[in-house]
Amino acid sequence: MTSPATAPAEPGYGTGSVRHASPAGTAEPQVTADRVLARCRDLVRPSLSAAISRLHPWHGEMAAYSLGWCGVGGAPADGSYEGKGVRQALAVLCAEAVGAPGEKAVAGAVAVELIHTFSLMHDDIMDGDGTRRQRETVWKAYGTGPAVLAGDALFALAVRTLVEAPGPRTAAAVGRLSETLNGLVRGQAEDLLFSARPWTGPDAVRTDEYRAMAELKTGTLLGCAAALGGLLGGAPARTVAALDLAGRHLGVAFQAVDDLLGIWGDPAVTGKPVHSDLRQRKKTCPVLAALAGDGPRSEELAALLRSPLPLDEAGAARAAALVESCGGRAATLDEARHHLDAARACLRSVPLAPRAAHEIEVLLGFLLHRRV
Amino acid sequence: MTSPATAPAEPGYGTGSVRHASPAGTAEPQVTADRVLARCRDLVRPSLSAAISRLHPWHGEMAAYSLGWCGVGGAPADGSYEGKGVRQALAVLCAEAVGAPGEKAVAGAVAVELIHTFSLMHDDIMDGDGTRRQRETVWKAYGTGPAVLAGDALFALAVRTLVEAPGPRTAAAVGRLSETLNGLVRGQAEDLLFSARPWTGPDAVRTDEYRAMAELKTGTLLGCAAALGGLLGGAPARTVAALDLAGRHLGVAFQAVDDLLGIWGDPAVTGKPVHSDLRQRKKTCPVLAALAGDGPRSEELAALLRSPLPLDEAGAARAAALVESCGGRAATLDEARHHLDAARACLRSVPLAPRAAHEIEVLLGFLLHRRV
Repeated sequence: MTSPATAPAEPGYGTGSVRHASPAGTAEPQVTADRVLARCRDLVRPSLSAAISRLHPWHGEMAAYSLGWCGVGGAPADGSYEGKGVRQALAVLCAEAVGAPGEKAVAGAVAVELIHTFSLMHDDIMDGDGTRRQRETVWKAYGTGPAVLAGDALFALAVRTLVEAPGPRTAAAVGRLSETLNGLVRGQAEDLLFSARPWTGPDAVRTDEYRAMAELKTGTLLGCAAALGGLLGGAPARTVAALDLAGRHLGVAFQAVDDLLGIWGDPAVTGKPVHSDLRQRKKTCPVLAALAGDGPRSEELAALLRSPLPLDEAGAARAAALVESCGGRAATLDEARHHLDAARACLRSVPLAPRAAHEIEVLLGFLLHRRV
Repeated sequence: MTSPATAPAEPGYGTGSVRHASPAGTAEPQVTADRVLARCRDLVRPSLSAAISRLHPWHGEMAAYSLGWCGVGGAPADGSYEGKGVRQALAVLCAEAVGAPGEKAVAGAVAVELIHTFSLMHDDIMDGDGTRRQRETVWKAYGTGPAVLAGDALFALAVRTLVEAPGPRTAAAVGRLSETLNGLVRGQAEDLLFSARPWTGPDAVRTDEYRAMAELKTGTLLGCAAALGGLLGGAPARTVAALDLAGRHLGVAFQAVDDLLGIWGDPAVTGKPVHSDLRQRKKTCPVLAALAGDGPRSEELAALLRSPLPLDEAGAARAAALVESCGGRAATLDEARHHLDAARACLRSVPLAPRAAHEIEVLLGFLLHRRV
């Protein structure tokens, strides 16, 4: 099983010679995505924890469970269920990239992390997903009603955290978060509606529609994280806009990688069965790209997916092979690379502090090459 | 079947001689709650409708369905399923009461109405309620997942509507809405948790805990509606605080009346089976007040409620009679009257424009005496 990271290493990535990234071209071998993410989580955690302690204790526990901080009942967890914290990291790094201390972005980082947690809780209900990060999802562990309400509580807390943040840019930050929330739910609506559409024919989901959905569903919040970092860090509007757009492109790339992992990810790492997205007949980028062709293999794939029978192991493996041989895997990897390049171009279009820009670059590379 | 309005008419209520209410004591016989509510709905509706048209069309339809504007599929409804619009009316009337045109409060009125609609959608999921206003609830008609997401969309839209409202008080209004949202979900959490607690003994729900829950769950949003009206109407902080507190008291009174209707309401009017809340074994004010006594009838009531068997018609009727004879009905009516009086006292503590104050007074009386 190969990971989606079958692409050759990006030129310069991880070698310290990234353009505009490391100061004066000096190597910084010690900068790894894990370390960058851990540093940002450590910076944000006290405020995130303080925010969550304002919730009703019941919701506080569900939030902490969802964040991987505790088990059902509240006993502390060992950290192995924690998310990477990409959104909070992006907020912190973008503040640093515009020359502010990362602390300036912490309220924004907390808000986007709370929104991310809320959206996972509600999306898992909508998608009927019972497992996430190899544990029961919140609705599965606590019940649907409580999970709906805990999500609402996190949503409300995110808005409140930003509303109460000090500083002259609070109103603008709240406005941006509010736009983001509207985009996020619109993207999720499109995604839910895709499932009811046919696999082929004039009403089939086009890859450009899929991309638009991914930008809303995944890109909006990553764009918001980056923009809030810039905004709270005091950057001018042009820089904030570039950071926002970079985050949106990153979101589309991120979704493409998720889609690859949903079919070809290693079950031992993803915590999902092999070919999981195919078994669930999810309309994801590789499948839609494969079906967009009109050869006999595309037709065989469509027939497999249209069949009312569940896809067994052999059927799912055959479908995965068809997706790959119809070019769906390569097209999705291209999609990820293209949007990652676009994100990089956005970042290079504005002046950013070299150290933080380098850390962002390392993070981008990690997100394309991740296996989880 | 008598309605909860068995109390004698409040002195002066509806007679035009309400203190501080009608200008110079002149009678205004034409002011009825229905007319006041309709005027406010007419004022708010274009903006509410415009806000909803910004939603994803799928969510727009669910929102319009929930508001009683259309049926499933989007065909216009005849208006018989529309809510009263108490919250939007309160916002408009409070702006007028502080001397501003009602238009000033419209963004606030839209926001509270959207939040109310969101909370009904999600609460119906949590409570498993399949019927509201004699129609299927949104989750029943559209599915749980779509109803969760449509609620989220309304929540996000409410924040956005207020964030984008023009005027110098926008930030303060958004801050108040954000506090309200946090209170609202906390109240709903308490209400959900009450269901798991015993009927009697040291862990039983006390009536003061119930009141605190009702203030959060119902009072916070009515207080917010009133406060936003005052705030957007340009009132000083002291007036805004008095309006907020009046709305909170009104909320507790409103919840008490709801609890009376949940047991003794006319099914033809409420659209719910007779003794509905008892059959569902809801821990409401009349029941908790009745169980707080320690006579043999309280014990019989507790035994009926504790029994794992469903309450049939005779059992529910017996339980209702026991609640009444243990004083639960009278105590709840007292609770409603007490908090309505407290709301009135708050309103009288600040200078308000007589005409609007009179209309608010008419509305308060209607809410206590309503049968639906």
